[in-house]
Amino acid sequence: MAKKIAVLAGDGIGPEIVAEALKVLSYLNTDMNLGLVFENALIGGAAYDAFGTPLPQTTLNLCKNADAVLLGAVGGPKWEPLPHAVRPERGLLGVRSELNLFSNLRPAILYPQLADASTLKPEVVAGLDIMIVRELTGGIYFGQPRGIRLLENGEQQGFNTLVYCESEIRRIAHSAFKTAQKRHNKLCSVDKANVLEVTDLWRKVVSEVGREYPDVQLSHMYVDNAAMQLVRNPKQFDVIVTTNMFGDILSDTAAMLTGSIGMLPSASLDANGKGMYEPIHGSAPDIAGQGIANPLATLLSVAMMLRYTFNETAAAERIEQAVNQALDSGVRTADIYSEGMTQVSTSGMGDAVLNAL
Amino acid sequence: MAKKIAVLAGDGIGPEIVAEALKVLSYLNTDMNLGLVFENALIGGAAYDAFGTPLPQTTLNLCKNADAVLLGAVGGPKWEPLPHAVRPERGLLGVRSELNLFSNLRPAILYPQLADASTLKPEVVAGLDIMIVRELTGGIYFGQPRGIRLLENGEQQGFNTLVYCESEIRRIAHSAFKTAQKRHNKLCSVDKANVLEVTDLWRKVVSEVGREYPDVQLSHMYVDNAAMQLVRNPKQFDVIVTTNMFGDILSDTAAMLTGSIGMLPSASLDANGKGMYEPIHGSAPDIAGQGIANPLATLLSVAMMLRYTFNETAAAERIEQAVNQALDSGVRTADIYSEGMTQVSTSGMGDAVLNAL
Ligand SMILES: CC(C)[C@H](C(=O)O)[C@@H](O)C(=O)O
Ligand SMILES: CC(C)[C@H](C(=O)O)[C@@H](O)C(=O)O
Repeated sequence: MAKKIAVLAGDGIGPEIVAEALKVLSYLNTDMNLGLVFENALIGGAAYDAFGTPLPQTTLNLCKNADAVLLGAVGGPKWEPLPHAVRPERGLLGVRSELNLFSNLRPAILYPQLADASTLKPEVVAGLDIMIVRELTGGIYFGQPRGIRLLENGEQQGFNTLVYCESEIRRIAHSAFKTAQKRHNKLCSVDKANVLEVTDLWRKVVSEVGREYPDVQLSHMYVDNAAMQLVRNPKQFDVIVTTNMFGDILSDTAAMLTGSIGMLPSASLDANGKGMYEPIHGSAPDIAGQGIANPLATLLSVAMMLRYTFNETAAAERIEQAVNQALDSGVRTADIYSEGMTQVSTSGMGDAVLNAL
Repeated sequence: MAKKIAVLAGDGIGPEIVAEALKVLSYLNTDMNLGLVFENALIGGAAYDAFGTPLPQTTLNLCKNADAVLLGAVGGPKWEPLPHAVRPERGLLGVRSELNLFSNLRPAILYPQLADASTLKPEVVAGLDIMIVRELTGGIYFGQPRGIRLLENGEQQGFNTLVYCESEIRRIAHSAFKTAQKRHNKLCSVDKANVLEVTDLWRKVVSEVGREYPDVQLSHMYVDNAAMQLVRNPKQFDVIVTTNMFGDILSDTAAMLTGSIGMLPSASLDANGKGMYEPIHGSAPDIAGQGIANPLATLLSVAMMLRYTFNETAAAERIEQAVNQALDSGVRTADIYSEGMTQVSTSGMGDAVLNAL
């Protein structure tokens, strides 16, 4: 039975980096007889330009019928003036929500070859390997009511709702504990339970779920402290689980600790291992079309896809090793370039990985 | 006419650090004829233990009748099991709200004497001087409705409301633009306007207010990107203005960039310059009662008080210079100790500043 991948290149550098990822994946597909088939569709600003909506029904159907989704990136200044409902981001949020991709895994790994790229002192980040598990289909991103209303005094008032029910918290907690079990059995749950009632419930439910995982050491931390601790001593963390909004902020902080967000993949999973895979770096409109973007985060996202959705561990490892070999050989895209290395283009980097395979 | 300061030492290390601050301030009060009078009251866990509430009416009345409030810190594990309504934090939030202290100024300054304390590379943080202006009496901290309810399916659901009206945004924007005018005329407003409607309104109103300050260069940034940029290149920022919750997170990130949060003061101001002044570091229950806490953040908070509420610039500068001289002389509390320096106690540091005066 064919395994179907929906390919959504999206906006900005999306098409360039996705092309390189597919180049490598197609080779492996043949070489290892993976049985993968690909189908393309538009999303984000590109979809808006063609169809007037960032998530056309055909794209959504394709994603629903696929086993996995590979996404490049969405968004750009061109579409910022648009009303909320049709902005590129809505396409991404729509797929997350419609496919129930509630568990967002965001690794922050420091590649030894790129240790210098971090703005933090080497001893603070050497060997850094954190996994952030972010709740992705609930919280303030999707909470109702929301909007802008006119008050009686003539003023406008904006409002959004941060809301979680027990089952939403429970399922992301299970996902996080299981992730911790595959790593170093340490989980830190991040909330603001001293101020927000909803995260008081969060803390309570995560603690309850924790009793089912006695082998995992659970701790709790307030979000402001977590933001500090990530800067002060990031290696104290193994797995962090948190809400959608806090996860958005903390995962970007964690990613930046490595100094090379052009290297970091992500997986967004449903309860059955179906997932959307994307680099965390975004559409980078300022360098789009120049052939200089780093395709490695997308390639490593493909590796996550092979591992999490298709259980093709060997294939995933081959990609990861090839990326490491490419780095060892000294090739670098502009974002991770340092003196003495060989600067290559987007496709040059794709080729280097392909050669390593 | 006497200028009245309400002194709320609070919990944990609060009493120790406030004692040192008052030692120095009392000296200046006499030496410079400042006409300050002090009155103590309980807040937080200490108030709860004595009166069953973290903010007794007498304490609130004292604060309302005072010209300024000096706060140590509130909270500790002892009170964490308490219900939300009577936790120590509620005392602090109550004063902020009841006194209308909507503008929270949180400087993140790297002291050259302590440059090594940062976990970031010296070239990234040398000379760092950022001011975070955090909205403090609105947003999700105070939004209604809030709580935990039972759903029909028997599940609990937690909810909080993020809400801002135009006038709340307008007044914090004015405060931020005026702050930028006294610094380097650069203001970055941080929101999540691509997802949250309320911060779309935030962006709109801040931009409108910006037209009244043509000399200030205004930019906008999404909160996840701001969290990254603070780590990547913090010196790109002069003043940052943001919501209560984002400000809580980003100001702690910014503070930690300096590596010495034992040094950082804060001011929480109303529309007329009345304010509460407190160190940002919190109650540090783990080291309370040992006489090792760093009193400099509280002392520098006193300097902010003299400057912002009492317009005693000369007195403020004397404190700041004395702090610098104490650091130059090599004395260090444990939190900022490094090899070759002289380690001193809380009161030893207070004495060093007093001697410098
Ligand atoms: C583009 C945006 C809607 C999105 C988010 O906030 O979730 C992005 O920042 C991310 O983290 O994937
Ligand atoms: C103690 C807590 C309620 C408070 C806050 O979240 O505002 C603290 O973290 C702060 O930043 O002053």
